Amino acid sequence: MTDGQNPFSRQERVVVIGAGLSGSLAAVYLARHGYLVDVYERRPDPRTAPAGLGGRSINLGLSARGMRALDEVGLLADVLKRSVPMRGRVVHSPDGAVRFQPYGVREHEILHSVLRDELIALLVDAAETSAGVRFHFGWRLNRLDRDTATVEVLSEAGGDPVEVGADLVVGADGIHSVVRQHLQRGLRADYSQEFLEWGYKELTIPVGDDGEPRVRLEALHVWPGESAMMVAHPNVDGSLTCSLFMPHEGPVSFATLDTPEAVLGFFRANFADAEELMPNLVEEIAGHPVGHLVTVRTAPWRHGDRVVLIGDAAHAVVPFYGQGMNSAFEDCLVLSDCLARHTDRAAALAAFEAARKPHTDVLADLSIANFVDLRDRVHKPGYTAHAVADRLLSRLMPDRWTPLYTMVAHTTTPYADALARAKRQDRILRGATAAAGALAALGAVTTIGAALRRRSRGR
Amino acid sequence: MTDGQNPFSRQERVVVIGAGLSGSLAAVYLARHGYLVDVYERRPDPRTAPAGLGGRSINLGLSARGMRALDEVGLLADVLKRSVPMRGRVVHSPDGAVRFQPYGVREHEILHSVLRDELIALLVDAAETSAGVRFHFGWRLNRLDRDTATVEVLSEAGGDPVEVGADLVVGADGIHSVVRQHLQRGLRADYSQEFLEWGYKELTIPVGDDGEPRVRLEALHVWPGESAMMVAHPNVDGSLTCSLFMPHEGPVSFATLDTPEAVLGFFRANFADAEELMPNLVEEIAGHPVGHLVTVRTAPWRHGDRVVLIGDAAHAVVPFYGQGMNSAFEDCLVLSDCLARHTDRAAALAAFEAARKPHTDVLADLSIANFVDLRDRVHKPGYTAHAVADRLLSRLMPDRWTPLYTMVAHTTTPYADALARAKRQDRILRGATAAAGALAALGAVTTIGAALRRRSRGR
Repeated sequence: MTDGQNPFSRQERVVVIGAGLSGSLAAVYLARHGYLVDVYERRPDPRTAPAGLGGRSINLGLSARGMRALDEVGLLADVLKRSVPMRGRVVHSPDGAVRFQPYGVREHEILHSVLRDELIALLVDAAETSAGVRFHFGWRLNRLDRDTATVEVLSEAGGDPVEVGADLVVGADGIHSVVRQHLQRGLRADYSQEFLEWGYKELTIPVGDDGEPRVRLEALHVWPGESAMMVAHPNVDGSLTCSLFMPHEGPVSFATLDTPEAVLGFFRANFADAEELMPNLVEEIAGHPVGHLVTVRTAPWRHGDRVVLIGDAAHAVVPFYGQGMNSAFEDCLVLSDCLARHTDRAAALAAFEAARKPHTDVLADLSIANFVDLRDRVHKPGYTAHAVADRLLSRLMPDRWTPLYTMVAHTTTPYADALARAKRQDRILRGATAAAGALAALGAVTTIGAALRRRSRGR
Repeated sequence: MTDGQNPFSRQERVVVIGAGLSGSLAAVYLARHGYLVDVYERRPDPRTAPAGLGGRSINLGLSARGMRALDEVGLLADVLKRSVPMRGRVVHSPDGAVRFQPYGVREHEILHSVLRDELIALLVDAAETSAGVRFHFGWRLNRLDRDTATVEVLSEAGGDPVEVGADLVVGADGIHSVVRQHLQRGLRADYSQEFLEWGYKELTIPVGDDGEPRVRLEALHVWPGESAMMVAHPNVDGSLTCSLFMPHEGPVSFATLDTPEAVLGFFRANFADAEELMPNLVEEIAGHPVGHLVTVRTAPWRHGDRVVLIGDAAHAVVPFYGQGMNSAFEDCLVLSDCLARHTDRAAALAAFEAARKPHTDVLADLSIANFVDLRDRVHKPGYTAHAVADRLLSRLMPDRWTPLYTMVAHTTTPYADALARAKRQDRILRGATAAAGALAALGAVTTIGAALRRRSRGR
């Protein structure tokens, strides 16, 4: 922890709190700016310790924004090697019927399923090979002086707290960010946390007895439903990791899945093919914890030229748009751009917050809206007609019509801009529907008129 | 603190945390239900200690909801004796011009200005004369076990913490409620705090040198403005207490009022009559702290049959609708009703939250909207025309048309119901405006048509 003889001692120092997805990629970016970077992470090194993230989402869908941020620092190819492409969505009906929907109209419009821990390990490796980056696992933040960027860290192994001076502290310590608490204490900070009444639990679709995947591998599998839904991501070994979403409490809820009979009864009623695909269903439901789904919106994200928040610490979203990791990676890219464009670091951090917050606020709304859509609207005819028209128009004029999902998942159009464009398209679609209705009505009048004329002639 | 010989020992016990407006009125109501009530308050007894609430709003407008809640326990007449009626609004223009707007069309549609500390003292007196109520000033909450309703309190004078067992704990400890923290810890609790960029500072309009009030006493005085605004409440002694609202930072802000010249220059430019009315302006601006304006929304407000939040602890609003105290008093009335209607206390607390939260959420929105209205729209012609039409209709058909402000301030119609009715009225007003516009357009077309016909005849 002491480095009086550090050869880089005239360089500026950054302390990153948290070596998760956003913290480890931020370290890569910050090293490129010539900073000396020390990353402190409470958990043990993911490369040597068993994962044991029980209940946390362990694989994720990498999409355009995340890919761009990885590509910028030369890491995309390595990541894609360890991921499974998802070329579309396989929708499972309650009766067990299955249909495949490709993601987009263009070849590159696919997602990539990647294991969280493998990805973090890759990023930590990449950061450690950058000059000036050091990781300190098993250390947690105890105090932060936001005016001097001085942190006090504590080893999980015990011992006295250690003070570390820095020029900048990056809070990449997730939804329960301690950096955020210190950054905002006593300030006029806006903060909101909002829970869904639904939670989630991880389940597994193991490789079949024949060694082959039990379902089409290169796809995201979705089981929509009003009282419960599931999503499954593929793994390189041919298994899939499944998240079951349902209410915490109530008549159909995690609280009622308390006997093997209740579990099997529930799956048979709601997901006809689940029992066959998930042979360890009953044990996993009993053994795995229920995760919470929470949205955090807050401001400010920064303090002078000394502290900045990124990723979940600044904007946690529910997972229904698959953008949590992707937006965290995008933060690293945008923060890097802002640091490059402004020599005054306080201005750079202000520009970063101004550039990102309007878009992550929209992402928070979209993610909740997609939860509602998945739950309530997938089966509704009106929704389907609209979605079909949306998809059809994007095929007929791919350069001029892009569905919202495509913009969010397969482009790097900022979230709020994507939403604004989707709203314009929606107005056009609604207008067209109304016009079609009017034409139909006109047709009916003409027909009735003709019939009346025929009748009057017939008389 | 010990009461082994308490003659009421078979009665149920309530601990109220906080002897502010909501806590002391709640004690009166709870005593009527036969509870033994112990109220713990961190601050000293307001009846013997100097007020010294520097920077907090020290007088308040009592309106219909608050009056009803006081009346229900026989306290209204006493409170009105110590208050000044406000029969309308005196609006001061930037140039010093003044106009009076009566509040309502009915005799009883007036507000009553009352000093916070006097009102609290009156409520504490009333509660203490109820059987079974005791106040403990100078004690703060240290811990709360939400499952057993056991609290641990600490004397501000020092000494060991004291444990107090109860059947129910009422959190009436304000916006920074410690009860709320203990109630919600580790639960899926929604919480949001949202600051306005404006703050406030208390100023005084003292009695004139002739012993007479310097302005019309029986009114709420308002100085609207886009960059700063003021509101003043009358006191029984003929003085008025004024709140100056403006941004914390920026070109016109509290931060820039840092010299006597800056202060006087600001008031001369924005409030022409202020210098004459407030002879201690410069000293008060320098000496008084800037208060924050914050909205808190949260849930849950209760835990089983053991803990419940009321007043600011459950729903803090900005003061621009003058409903903070009134809604807190209404909480006491509704909580009492729910306790009377349900023998199962958990059901009573659930009914209380269900009955109140939709309405206090609406109040939070209305209070922020009224800030925006006061700041931006008071001078705008469109707003004035709408407000004039609204007022006119309420005079023409007082039983069928009630402006939103009237419903909020002068009735006990629940806030959300008041808003829904106001929206219906707004639609009618807008429809009428559109119809008037259509008639005007039709008139224009007819006129143009007639002109064209004249022209063609003339040719």
